[in-house]
Amino acid sequence: MSNQEIDELRAKIDNVNLQLLKLINERGQLVQEIGEIKKSLGLEMYDPIRERDMLNLIANYNEGPFEIATMQHIFKEIFKAGIELIEDDHRKALLV
Amino acid sequence: MSNQEIDELRAKIDNVNLQLLKLINERGQLVQEIGEIKKSLGLEMYDPIRERDMLNLIANYNEGPFEIATMQHIFKEIFKAGIELIEDDHRKALLV
Repeated sequence: MSNQEIDELRAKIDNVNLQLLKLINERGQLVQEIGEIKKSLGLEMYDPIRERDMLNLIANYNEGPFEIATMQHIFKEIFKAGIELIEDDHRKALLV
Repeated sequence: MSNQEIDELRAKIDNVNLQLLKLINERGQLVQEIGEIKKSLGLEMYDPIRERDMLNLIANYNEGPFEIATMQHIFKEIFKAGIELIEDDHRKALLV
């Protein structure tokens, strides 16, 4: 009985994981678009003020169960991956 | 003109961030439910085989722009937060 419940909850988690996967990649595409514009304007890719604003937004809207610090830690990893993505694109463009 | 484009893209990213926030917390609730069941059955909270299965699912469905390794790194942070959440709950329960 309880093992079946675990299986059902795991199926729900798989579903959430796939939604997260899609959203993180969607976010990556948006970051790439911003990266293109910034490159054309000669702007820095990394903007610490913007990052701080995003972390504040997350803190304001966080309803748990995760604590704000834990959530911000996860988001910092997502932000870092985004920055690496556009720096990588930029480097590849320079090599062409 | 391009600054306006950046603002529009940032608004889209904020929207994605808030969706991610909601989903990560939803995932946390599901993990807590599994944790309750596992506790009642005397099962280990951390299951490396299950984690491997989830990482494989993510690898199979990843369409980019993020590379599989980057995506799996982000998900490992999300998994770790989930485990810490239920170990924390368990510890608090033992203290009651």
